[in-house]
Amino acid sequence: MQKKEFSVTPWEVKGNIDYERLIKEFGLSPISSLPRQFQENFLFRRGIIYGHRDFDKVIEAVKNKKKFVMMTGLMPSGKFHFGHALVLKQILFYQSLGAKIYIAVADLEAYNTRNPNLSELRKTAIEEYLINYIALGLNPKNCDFYFQSQRSKDSEKSNAYYGLANRVSRYITFNEIKAIYGDITPGKLSSALLQVSDMIHSQLPEFEGPSQVVVPVGSDQDPHIKLARDIIQRIKDYKFIQLSSTYNLFLPGLKGGKMSSSDATSYIALTDNLDDTSNKIKKYAFSGGQNTIEEHRKKGGNPDTDISYQWLRMFFEEDDKKLEKIYHDYKSGKLLTSELKQILIDKLNKFLKQHQEKRKKAEKLVDKFLLI
Amino acid sequence: MQKKEFSVTPWEVKGNIDYERLIKEFGLSPISSLPRQFQENFLFRRGIIYGHRDFDKVIEAVKNKKKFVMMTGLMPSGKFHFGHALVLKQILFYQSLGAKIYIAVADLEAYNTRNPNLSELRKTAIEEYLINYIALGLNPKNCDFYFQSQRSKDSEKSNAYYGLANRVSRYITFNEIKAIYGDITPGKLSSALLQVSDMIHSQLPEFEGPSQVVVPVGSDQDPHIKLARDIIQRIKDYKFIQLSSTYNLFLPGLKGGKMSSSDATSYIALTDNLDDTSNKIKKYAFSGGQNTIEEHRKKGGNPDTDISYQWLRMFFEEDDKKLEKIYHDYKSGKLLTSELKQILIDKLNKFLKQHQEKRKKAEKLVDKFLLI
Repeated sequence: MQKKEFSVTPWEVKGNIDYERLIKEFGLSPISSLPRQFQENFLFRRGIIYGHRDFDKVIEAVKNKKKFVMMTGLMPSGKFHFGHALVLKQILFYQSLGAKIYIAVADLEAYNTRNPNLSELRKTAIEEYLINYIALGLNPKNCDFYFQSQRSKDSEKSNAYYGLANRVSRYITFNEIKAIYGDITPGKLSSALLQVSDMIHSQLPEFEGPSQVVVPVGSDQDPHIKLARDIIQRIKDYKFIQLSSTYNLFLPGLKGGKMSSSDATSYIALTDNLDDTSNKIKKYAFSGGQNTIEEHRKKGGNPDTDISYQWLRMFFEEDDKKLEKIYHDYKSGKLLTSELKQILIDKLNKFLKQHQEKRKKAEKLVDKFLLI
Repeated sequence: MQKKEFSVTPWEVKGNIDYERLIKEFGLSPISSLPRQFQENFLFRRGIIYGHRDFDKVIEAVKNKKKFVMMTGLMPSGKFHFGHALVLKQILFYQSLGAKIYIAVADLEAYNTRNPNLSELRKTAIEEYLINYIALGLNPKNCDFYFQSQRSKDSEKSNAYYGLANRVSRYITFNEIKAIYGDITPGKLSSALLQVSDMIHSQLPEFEGPSQVVVPVGSDQDPHIKLARDIIQRIKDYKFIQLSSTYNLFLPGLKGGKMSSSDATSYIALTDNLDDTSNKIKKYAFSGGQNTIEEHRKKGGNPDTDISYQWLRMFFEEDDKKLEKIYHDYKSGKLLTSELKQILIDKLNKFLKQHQEKRKKAEKLVDKFLLI
């Protein structure tokens, strides 16, 4: 058997990911025909959201204007970068469709697997994540933003959420845990079970009651989805509706491969200085171009491996026609790497300048999210 | 190596227990010199509470009139019998010493390891346990009686309690879990970690803050104590005071061996009918007497193996002089088995008659314990 040259788990993403193979291995369904609302979203349209489980039930809910919930989480560590912002694009999309949004700050998971300092984690969650979310357009209305360590100011809600996290442990064996996660620590197991509650507790009567939940994730989070889906089928004393999930490509790091908070040359943070950003793109962004201008004019570049192009495709250029032109111009050699980089830099700098202005207003809105 | 002829774990107690060996194997300290208040309690005085960990800190707290906490739990299953009532004697004793009492209804543990029906478990906890506790004298003042599934009506308290249960998972490995419990299920592991929070959460600022906690247990619960003590030493982001614990003998079952809720001929429940009770004692209570009256008069009986005598010693006869007389009369053959049984039956029936009257009043006081 051939050795896999990539590895995708909730705690590690390594190598160049073969998404078609992932779809097969994970048993996902490819995203195929989608109704208008979804086609209008470039993440769906361009296959950046590439796979799903039971997503038709979400499409049905949208069609029939039925209440549904989008749930996601964030790990409060490191800088908030464009990889994280890709998740937020999805949150905003579902919010525009009328979904109730649940956002869990995985501070207990971070405590158990990274940094055992809850107040530091809380500060990071607010300053790096929440303020950026608000600046990017997250609306406090119909949005339940919470910390795993402080689920609610309503004790009935808190008791229901934590009680469920404990009860789900009944429905899984250690052999199944090993099959899903490999060898894990008690801290990771507790976090995984709490995450099951994060994904399904909106269905409890203390919250929204029974309604469809969709969890958009990167493929690395699929083990958590599988665990929750297995458990849902087994719980007999409360009728949970099976989860839907979608899977998105990872925004690649500047140098190709994974974007990682622990490597500042792999990402651009939303609070990065504009000059630094330009330099980072020029210096690190992996190029699909040729070694000399002459060669490039002759042979053309490869947009599929070019990070600047990929960032335009996956984040900064939502206009398909403009993107197509860039694609063909680069491929034909008409557009040079330095010019392609400059298109990204201009887009990025415009974005960051506006964003950093919006952050100032966003800071004043933080309390609206913390009073739930 | 000699095979052990008994086994004591949190989920099973089998065989005839050699308490001296338990003290050695578990690394407990024997109960030795005790101040007056403790000597006045027959459970301490007679060595029914036979071992401890760090109990001197509780003695110090009592001497110096410092605030301290007594924590215990109950498993809401089966009938409330005299084995359970022995725990309550200790609760009442600590309440009389001024301790704040924490009583956890382990309904989530019961859900995960026995019966996944929380409303049934709640009903059993109230009707079989709480009402008997109240009838036996439990005072709602200074007593925090709670369900694991509904820690508090104050969300800050609930969040703190459940958050702690999740965080403690960081401080233990699966190898250590195996060394303490053997092979367990995820449900049992979750329950064990929640139980750590049950034992230590009173020390959080949301509850009593730092103060000594004593957990009186039967030896079968020592693994939970060990787990909590190990974890306490490792948590660095909050300073927990090390737990104290005491260990009591099990009230033996009627036929000798273990008293078990699943064998109605092994116990007497506090709601049992008086006639049935007399018959059960006559029929099942294991006797230390001789086969014939003549032989008994000549050789005498053995109070150490006689269950009726043991029940008098461990529960019904608090007067040392009366107990001593019974001991010697039985040993000398002056007291016959039928007469010894009748002493127990008279005591028991008097107790049950009064108790069952008190239960009626107790039913009206239930709400005082459920409004916390």
